[in-house]
Parts: sequence; C-alpha cells; structure tokens
Amino acid sequence: MNMLELIEKKRDGMALSQEEIAFFVDGVTRKTIPDYQISAFLMAVLWRGMTDEETKELTLSMAGSGEICDLSGIPGTKVDKHSTGGVGDKVTPILLPVVSSFGVPCVKLSGRGLGFTGGTIDKFESIQGFNTTVEPSQFREKIEKCGMLLGGQTEGLAPCDKYLYALRDVTGTVPSIPLIASSIMSKKIAGGSDAIVLDITCGSGAFMKDTESAGELARQMLAIGKLAGKPVSCVLSSMEQPLGSAVGNILEIQEVMETLSGHGREDVVTVVLTMASEMLKHTPYGKDLDSETLKERCAEKLKNGEALEKFRELLLSQGGMLDSSGNPVYVDEPFEVMTVCAHKDGYVKRCDALAVGEASCLLGAGRMEKTDMIDMGAGIKLFKKVGDPVKRGDHLYSLFTGTKNTVDDARIDEALLKMESAYEFSSEPVKPLQEILGVIS
Amino acid sequence: MNMLELIEKKRDGMALSQEEIAFFVDGVTRKTIPDYQISAFLMAVLWRGMTDEETKELTLSMAGSGEICDLSGIPGTKVDKHSTGGVGDKVTPILLPVVSSFGVPCVKLSGRGLGFTGGTIDKFESIQGFNTTVEPSQFREKIEKCGMLLGGQTEGLAPCDKYLYALRDVTGTVPSIPLIASSIMSKKIAGGSDAIVLDITCGSGAFMKDTESAGELARQMLAIGKLAGKPVSCVLSSMEQPLGSAVGNILEIQEVMETLSGHGREDVVTVVLTMASEMLKHTPYGKDLDSETLKERCAEKLKNGEALEKFRELLLSQGGMLDSSGNPVYVDEPFEVMTVCAHKDGYVKRCDALAVGEASCLLGAGRMEKTDMIDMGAGIKLFKKVGDPVKRGDHLYSLFTGTKNTVDDARIDEALLKMESAYEFSSEPVKPLQEILGVIS
Repeated sequence: MNMLELIEKKRDGMALSQEEIAFFVDGVTRKTIPDYQISAFLMAVLWRGMTDEETKELTLSMAGSGEICDLSGIPGTKVDKHSTGGVGDKVTPILLPVVSSFGVPCVKLSGRGLGFTGGTIDKFESIQGFNTTVEPSQFREKIEKCGMLLGGQTEGLAPCDKYLYALRDVTGTVPSIPLIASSIMSKKIAGGSDAIVLDITCGSGAFMKDTESAGELARQMLAIGKLAGKPVSCVLSSMEQPLGSAVGNILEIQEVMETLSGHGREDVVTVVLTMASEMLKHTPYGKDLDSETLKERCAEKLKNGEALEKFRELLLSQGGMLDSSGNPVYVDEPFEVMTVCAHKDGYVKRCDALAVGEASCLLGAGRMEKTDMIDMGAGIKLFKKVGDPVKRGDHLYSLFTGTKNTVDDARIDEALLKMESAYEFSSEPVKPLQEILGVIS
Repeated sequence: MNMLELIEKKRDGMALSQEEIAFFVDGVTRKTIPDYQISAFLMAVLWRGMTDEETKELTLSMAGSGEICDLSGIPGTKVDKHSTGGVGDKVTPILLPVVSSFGVPCVKLSGRGLGFTGGTIDKFESIQGFNTTVEPSQFREKIEKCGMLLGGQTEGLAPCDKYLYALRDVTGTVPSIPLIASSIMSKKIAGGSDAIVLDITCGSGAFMKDTESAGELARQMLAIGKLAGKPVSCVLSSMEQPLGSAVGNILEIQEVMETLSGHGREDVVTVVLTMASEMLKHTPYGKDLDSETLKERCAEKLKNGEALEKFRELLLSQGGMLDSSGNPVYVDEPFEVMTVCAHKDGYVKRCDALAVGEASCLLGAGRMEKTDMIDMGAGIKLFKKVGDPVKRGDHLYSLFTGTKNTVDDARIDEALLKMESAYEFSSEPVKPLQEILGVIS
C-alpha cells in the first residue's frame, strides 16, 4: 500500500477501505507521508466526498491516533458539547453552569480561536488567574470540587486531526463536510464523554453557509456517533448575525455575566436553553422529560441565580479571580474607541456575522495568524440587531480596543468600513431572525 | 495576492487571471510557495479544469520561467517533435534521420523514461559513447556537422514545469489535460523551434486512455500554439498495444536499425511516415505537397538507405560507436531469459500495452523510481500482435534481461504473469488495430 495509490483512488471517486484509511492516519501521525501528498489527498476528498463508512473509519482512526481520555472514574453521565464556531458565540460559559446545576458532571475541552471565529479558551483567559491547562489526571478532583471543568485540548488528544487541521487551513481544504465531521467527532470521541450535543452554526459567520450543508454535516455526525456507539444530537442554529450583543473576549464574558444574572438577550438564552435541554436528555435526570419542561427548568436556573453561582465556582476552581461583588477580574478592560449612530429611521435588515467577526479581528480581538497575540479588551458591542427598529441618532454599535495594546488607526478605519458593510437597513419592518433552525437526534 | 486565495478560487471553479497564474509560476520557480499548497492547487486544477486562456498563460509563464533556446542562428525551418509517450515508441530515432535527409535541421530535446513509458534519451544511451549532454552553445556546430542533434532537456529549460512535473508524479495529479498540455507546450516553446508536431498516443499504454481525451488534449495544444504564434499539428496514434515488436532500450535500437534498413514493421513505419510528412509540411520543402506524396518520398528514404546513413552520422556526431558493419556498439546485450509459445491455434485479440510496459519495467528496462538504474539489455520482444493468426507452438514473446544486471527470479515470474495477462486470444479472426486515429492541424 502506498499513499499515491490512495490519492489516485480517491481522485477517481472510489471509496477507501478501513486498512487504507488506517494507513493514511498512521502515516500522518508518524509523519511518514509528505505534506504535499496529504494536501493533494485532502483536495481529492473535498472534491469526491467520503461514504459514511469512510468518514467513520477516518474519525475512529484519528481518535485512536493519540491518547483517549478515560472519564469512567467520574460518576454520572458525562455529556460533551461542541459548536462549529461562530461570531459572539458565548454559549459554553453559560451552558456549563446551567447543566452542572442539575448535578450533571461537565468536562469541556475547548479550542482557541482562529480567524473571525472566537475560541472559548481565549474568552476564559480574559479572566485574571484562570488556568485552562488541566491534565487528565486532575479531571476527577476538579469535577468533585465544582462539578465542572474547562480545559484546553491537550497535545496528546487526536494528534492526527491537529496536524490535518493545520494543513487544511492553509490549503483551501477546510470546507469538506466529511473532513469537518471527522475532525470534530474524533476529538469528541477521544475526549471520552458518554454522549455528545453539537451546535451546528449556519450562515455567513459559520463554516456552513446554508441549511442544506448544515443538515448534511449533522447527518454525517449522527451517522458517525451511531457507528461509534455514542449518542449524538445536533442543534442547528443561525449564524447570519452575531449571537448576542458582544463580540470580543472580555466583552463576551461581561455578556455571560449579564445572561447568568437573568438579563440575557433572547437569542443567547434560546440557544443556551435548547442546548441544555438536549444535553440533559442524555442523562438519567432528563431522559423522560420533554424539551419544553427541560427548557423551563433551565430558564429557572438563570433566573434564580443558581447558574451564576455555579459559574463563580468554576472560575474559582480553576484559579480565576472574583472581586468583592463576585464579578470576574479581567486582565484588561475594553476601551471604547468610537460609537456609531444611525443616520436615519428604519429597521435593521442585515447585521452580517462574518463582517462583524472580521471587524472584531481587525481591532485585535482575534488572531489572523496562529501566533498572533489577542487583545482581550478589543471587540464590538452591537446595540441593534436584525428586526430592531432604529431611530436617527440611535447607537448602532461601539468599537473597542484594549487599554494596553491598541492597533494603529488604519486598522480601526478598516474595522469601521467592515462594520459599515455589515449593516443594512430597510424602511419597512423586518422580521427578526429565527435562532434555532432545527434539532436532529 | 496569496496562494491560499488562488487555491480557493480554483477549488470553487473560477478562472484565474493572467497575474494570478504569473504569481503561481513565479512562486513555484523561486520556491516561495510550499509544496503542500502547490499540490492542493494541482488537484483542484485536475478537478475543475482550466480555460484555454488560463492554459495558455500557464504555458507561456512556465516557458518563460527559465532560458529560451535561441535557434535563430541555425538556417532553415526548425520543426520540433514530441510524443506523449508509449510502450515500444521508437519513432524519434527513425523519424529524425528521415526528415533530416531532406535537408531540414532537426533539434530534438528529449526526456528520460519513468514508469512504464520509455524515454528516448535512455534508448540512445544504450549505444556506447553516445553523449546526450549538448549545450545550447553547441547546437549550431552539431547541426552544421550532420543536420541533427539529440539532447537531454537542459536544467535551465522551463524549470517551473520540471518542478511541477515531479510533484504531479507523486500526488496523483498527472492526468489533467490542461496540465499535460501546458507541460509539453512550455518545453516546446522554450525549445525555440519554429513549428511543433505532436504524436498524441491514445490507449492502455498512454496517458490518454480514449480518443475523446486525446482529441481534447490535441485541441488544447493547438489552441496554445495558436495563441503563442507557433504552428502545431497533432497526430493521434493508437497505443492499445506496443508500437513495433521490441520494448526495452537496446532491443528498440535494434528494431530502429531494422526499420532504417527497410525491414520495419508496418505499424512503426506508418507512424514514422505520418509524423515525417506533418513535419515536412511546416517547411518550405513540403508546404505545397500533399500528405501522400510526402509519405511516399519519406518511405523512399527508408528503402534507399539514406535515412540509415543519416542515423549513423547522428550517432558519430555525438560520440556513439559503430562496428565495422556500421551497426551501433551497445553497452550490453539482451540476454534471453525465456520464450513463451502459444498453447492453441487462434488469433491475437489483445496485446495490452500497459501490461507489456509494466512487464518490461519489472525486467529492469524502466525506472520504478527516478533514481533507479536502467538495465539496457532488458525488455520484451513480441512475435505476435493483434490480428495475427497463431498456431499452437508459435513463439509469442521473449523476455530479456541484460547480461550484467539481472533481476531476481521473483521479478521475472511477476513479469511473466503480467505478460500472460497482456495477451488475449480468439478463435475467430480479429481485425488488426488501426495505427493512426487522426491528424489535426
């Protein structure tokens, strides 16, 4: 067996056998296959696709390319959660405390952000002292302490996927559904949880641009889950506009605090409650309850402060600092650079997630390159979203940088131009966007 | 402009601009684009194709990536010849002396063989002393001496194509018509001749497996020639079975000698005469004569010994040794390992070129890897070809190795199995294959 044959087979539209996929994953992991053959193969996969069987084999081989977390020592049903990424996506820091407040152990391994999408790990690191390096050996202790833990993906987890992901990023081979599905699922399977709930974002600020491809991704992940013996459910959520009102690390944790205090924006709350009810359905607590009942009970946790208290416990458990009023102490603070007002009356017709994400990135909130430093205070606050009525003079959005690392004026101008292109208005009333596009399990 | 954008553009089925193609060729030539991006791009080109305009730009950019031969100092119309490769293809060593005997200067830069296809340079190097390293500065002297020269492609000619070709070879991106067309034409344009005649082989032993793709390749090369201002004609020839009776380096030069002595197999002679008449049509001598007249005059050169005499002049001009009877002295001699006979009466239905080429390669006549040594004496001699009647006990074919470097028995067994799979027989008479499938100009 050699790699050239595998490339040619896939190029000619044939399916690879279990042995051939294992050979590929092994060669990538042990670095015996040169990058130029891997990237040609990835482009052929993007072109020809993969059967469910191939995608499952690729997923399991990649999951097995490194260590597999053993969570069996932790009592209870461990449900993992993953989002395919978006702009202003602060679901995890709200969702975990909500689910945890039902006594369900939550082990969440998250990634860092690249490009216009933010990363959960980066958001938590905007809190002073918070330590995202949690070794598998500490999992049990952390769970016993507060019922939750939030860690960065360890080096040893699915190293083949890590390598492929970096290569896909620079070879135009990211938007392949089987490659996206296997990348996510390999990490989730190696993560060792009992069930998986996926938030598949869909729209301009997501990898999946339309409902059809998001649905196909969901279908493939459910198929992998089934073949791998792990229950999976998928929530399809809209990412045409950013989620909530804040984009940027400290700004988003501030919005998390508001939401946990019962004052969240409706779109954020809707996604959190939908995800939480799906997670609880996989546990003994929720398995016989319907979605509406579960959502109501979760909403109660946001209103009565229980989830907020759990969040504080999580921060303290991992070294995060709280001030005397129980708010996080941040590594910096957002510095408002400018606020843009409406020129005339109307309704917001479009608030493009991709453009807002790119603008936030230009302000320093995200990474253009993997090695870029993030400016934790930077970002954007949106005061008007799709469907909102707007009066001349109303605040539309504010741009922020950090107090320490400010970007040059040219980048701020560029970010402003991006924001101007993000918004579109109408003189006629506009229907607000529907947040949840579907739940598949 | 960056390479990732170019990959994504081609991946999404869009055409690249002149500037983008120039950026790509420049980056490949100066090694500023990493191989993994080049190979992903090549696979995207194989998938999405290229417009005629893109193919022309790629060709001209690659031709301009290194030195361009200046043949203007050599009087007369310089017509170049190229074959897309095949098994037993010994057309060049016969064609050049035929054309040259009309006083037409012939400058031929050839390649080495890789895989099942043989290379002209390797065949000439089976003659003792023959030197294929001819610097452009020596071209005029050689032409004045004997009217012909045969050289290896110099390092400096179309270096971008050289680099891409090596990468395509190991990334499954060879069979893309625009990539094949631009690769051939860039070298031909950099070679500096006034007109180009292409032998596009078609069938199991060629890159083009069917007449449709061979016709499309011809169409693209004619389009490039037109846009580049170089007259091009294409001969489509069959490569379902090997050309002639010999496959392997010394064996083929021996068949060249027989053909030049007027005892050639009809298939070899037909291709040589068709190519020769097309080449002569681009010269003042042949431009007003019809194909039939030109073919007759060329056939005469084979019968009256003029072409044979020119071939001897070519060998002597480049240091090749002749014995006292005017035959080449070879670096080795073919050693017959076995001869296989027919089991029963019938007719040859199939003699698969690819299988014969692979068998010959296994015996040592070709390279599996670029660095492999060739066994000049190795190869296969075919006594029966498609349409030939066969009687039980008739010799079908012989396997040869060299006298010095013999391969192990396992490889000989493998070659024999390949040969057994190459042949198919019928009890009913079978029509011989048509050698020339078309001429397009």
